[in-house]
Amino acid sequence: MMHFNIPPLTLDEALVWQKIDNLNKPKGSLGMLEALAFRICRMQHTLSPTLSHPCHLLFAADHGIEREGVSVSPRAVTWQQMINFTHGGGGVNLFCKQHGFELTLVDMGVDHDLSGHPTILNRKIANGTRNFLNEPAMSQQQMLQALNTGSELAESCNAKGCNVLCLGEMGIGNTSPSSVWMSLWGNLPLSSCVGSGSGLNTEGEKHKLAILEQAVSNFKRQPLPHNDPSTIIQYFGGFEMVAAIGAMLRAAELRMIVLVDGFIMSACMLAASKLNPAVLDYAVFGHCGDESGHRQLLALMQAQPILQLGMRLGEGTGALCAYPIIESSVRMINEMNNFKDANIDKYF
Amino acid sequence: MMHFNIPPLTLDEALVWQKIDNLNKPKGSLGMLEALAFRICRMQHTLSPTLSHPCHLLFAADHGIEREGVSVSPRAVTWQQMINFTHGGGGVNLFCKQHGFELTLVDMGVDHDLSGHPTILNRKIANGTRNFLNEPAMSQQQMLQALNTGSELAESCNAKGCNVLCLGEMGIGNTSPSSVWMSLWGNLPLSSCVGSGSGLNTEGEKHKLAILEQAVSNFKRQPLPHNDPSTIIQYFGGFEMVAAIGAMLRAAELRMIVLVDGFIMSACMLAASKLNPAVLDYAVFGHCGDESGHRQLLALMQAQPILQLGMRLGEGTGALCAYPIIESSVRMINEMNNFKDANIDKYF
Repeated sequence: MMHFNIPPLTLDEALVWQKIDNLNKPKGSLGMLEALAFRICRMQHTLSPTLSHPCHLLFAADHGIEREGVSVSPRAVTWQQMINFTHGGGGVNLFCKQHGFELTLVDMGVDHDLSGHPTILNRKIANGTRNFLNEPAMSQQQMLQALNTGSELAESCNAKGCNVLCLGEMGIGNTSPSSVWMSLWGNLPLSSCVGSGSGLNTEGEKHKLAILEQAVSNFKRQPLPHNDPSTIIQYFGGFEMVAAIGAMLRAAELRMIVLVDGFIMSACMLAASKLNPAVLDYAVFGHCGDESGHRQLLALMQAQPILQLGMRLGEGTGALCAYPIIESSVRMINEMNNFKDANIDKYF
Repeated sequence: MMHFNIPPLTLDEALVWQKIDNLNKPKGSLGMLEALAFRICRMQHTLSPTLSHPCHLLFAADHGIEREGVSVSPRAVTWQQMINFTHGGGGVNLFCKQHGFELTLVDMGVDHDLSGHPTILNRKIANGTRNFLNEPAMSQQQMLQALNTGSELAESCNAKGCNVLCLGEMGIGNTSPSSVWMSLWGNLPLSSCVGSGSGLNTEGEKHKLAILEQAVSNFKRQPLPHNDPSTIIQYFGGFEMVAAIGAMLRAAELRMIVLVDGFIMSACMLAASKLNPAVLDYAVFGHCGDESGHRQLLALMQAQPILQLGMRLGEGTGALCAYPIIESSVRMINEMNNFKDANIDKYF
């Protein structure tokens, strides 16, 4: 298994709060902006944090489990959307443009030949994973390849000067592995981890739940170390999800801010934290989405999401929309006067 | 009393939803961005809304009621902060700069000579209001002057091409009139409308509550039309608050988006809605602050605030921080592909 050596946060907490509490405002009155500034200072080990060259990695892949009818959207939407993203017409494009993120589209395993699209990075491992209803979604070799690809891409963002990495995904069927991960690691019944995905009705949700229960039951009958994180990742993961896990872990190693999107990326962060819990020190959760169970999933990580806008598009859109709040927090700590500079009476 | 003729929203709802639902995303999956886009289309009576020349009006004034020790911060903080804002060191400055808002500082009644500061617009009505514990905070004439000033300033923003107006305030003591308004119009006990303001302790909150209960009781003993909105506004209001009410009403007349900040500006929007309920059609509530009772105050207007970040600084800072979400919603409806353009299979 790959090893990630994530630096612990060692900047003195009192020192950071001292700076924040002396800014020209009643103590605590900027709420989450203060909490974010505190965390970012410690991630970057400085009292004057910066945000530079924000990047968004969008990983895409197809899922064997999709063959079981667990999604209301057809598999072809994965590649069709990827092509749409190359034309700038997707949600992810708009919000990357709005907030100045460099967008990289990565084919990790889309079930379609995308090689004619030069703006899609070809890192295809296979044309989708195998169907985890009956067998592991990928081999150990494939998992390592996906982790490694994510890790390398995070590193190449960092080499360009990026210190804020946002992750997003495209892959019809990927709420299914996310729900399974949440259930296994959160020790929660699958029924509280399964939602409507891109729009299942009640009957569809029931079917999805039954399929996933069967898949987990089959997994538990296999002669495998059922509590080993990498076994769980390999058995259920999608290539795009495992790449995101690799990117998260490498980004944290490099002290980058890791901006986490909705249900699927939160499940990937949970997986990453099972490989190395310190990754959570560098995670900023952009939003609490509308997928049933997302709130509970975030609670497993004690996450404080920035936005609650009822979004559930994926692609990283919720996290991107939260970025200006992060910018506000950094502006606050760098640009706001303190009481002394401003000649203001004590203002509680 | 001034009359405001706010245009009703008449753009066909089904037509707007048709456009939003055909965008390239599962139906409803952009949550509040869709709800905002829907509302803004109708405010502007178009399927292709725009945001232009955003302006922020910051009104400042002092309050007679401050003499009763209802705030932990001294009165002088009002003028000191105003001067600080002219140097760019306040929260409001940072976020105006971040989001491209033109900031106008308006002295509506600060108890200090600010005439030496050319970037503070002098619209001073008096050196603070009278103390509403024993008498009306202002005369009817003063109220009309404040309403008119706010209205004129909103109009001059509009004349510069502005169609998004954000309002903020500075005035030590102004949570007190806000709580009274909320209590009277919401038919709620004062105890559920009073909070800590800029940082009162439990004892301080008790004192504030007792003072406000006495003030309301005194008001009710006066031979006045106690249910008349303009009487209530005149009796308890601050000059900065009444100016904001005038600005909100005139902005709605001009079909501008009115961006509402925290507890105090929400109380002003409630007041404005008592003069003309249609103003709420143009109100976008930026955030739910941390002041006790803000959530309940928003509920009185069926408001759906964009952010919940535990902010309680005032100045308009919470509303300004919400602006990029409004921008995202407008980008969504204007720039996102629809299914037909994008050649994508039905994607629920």
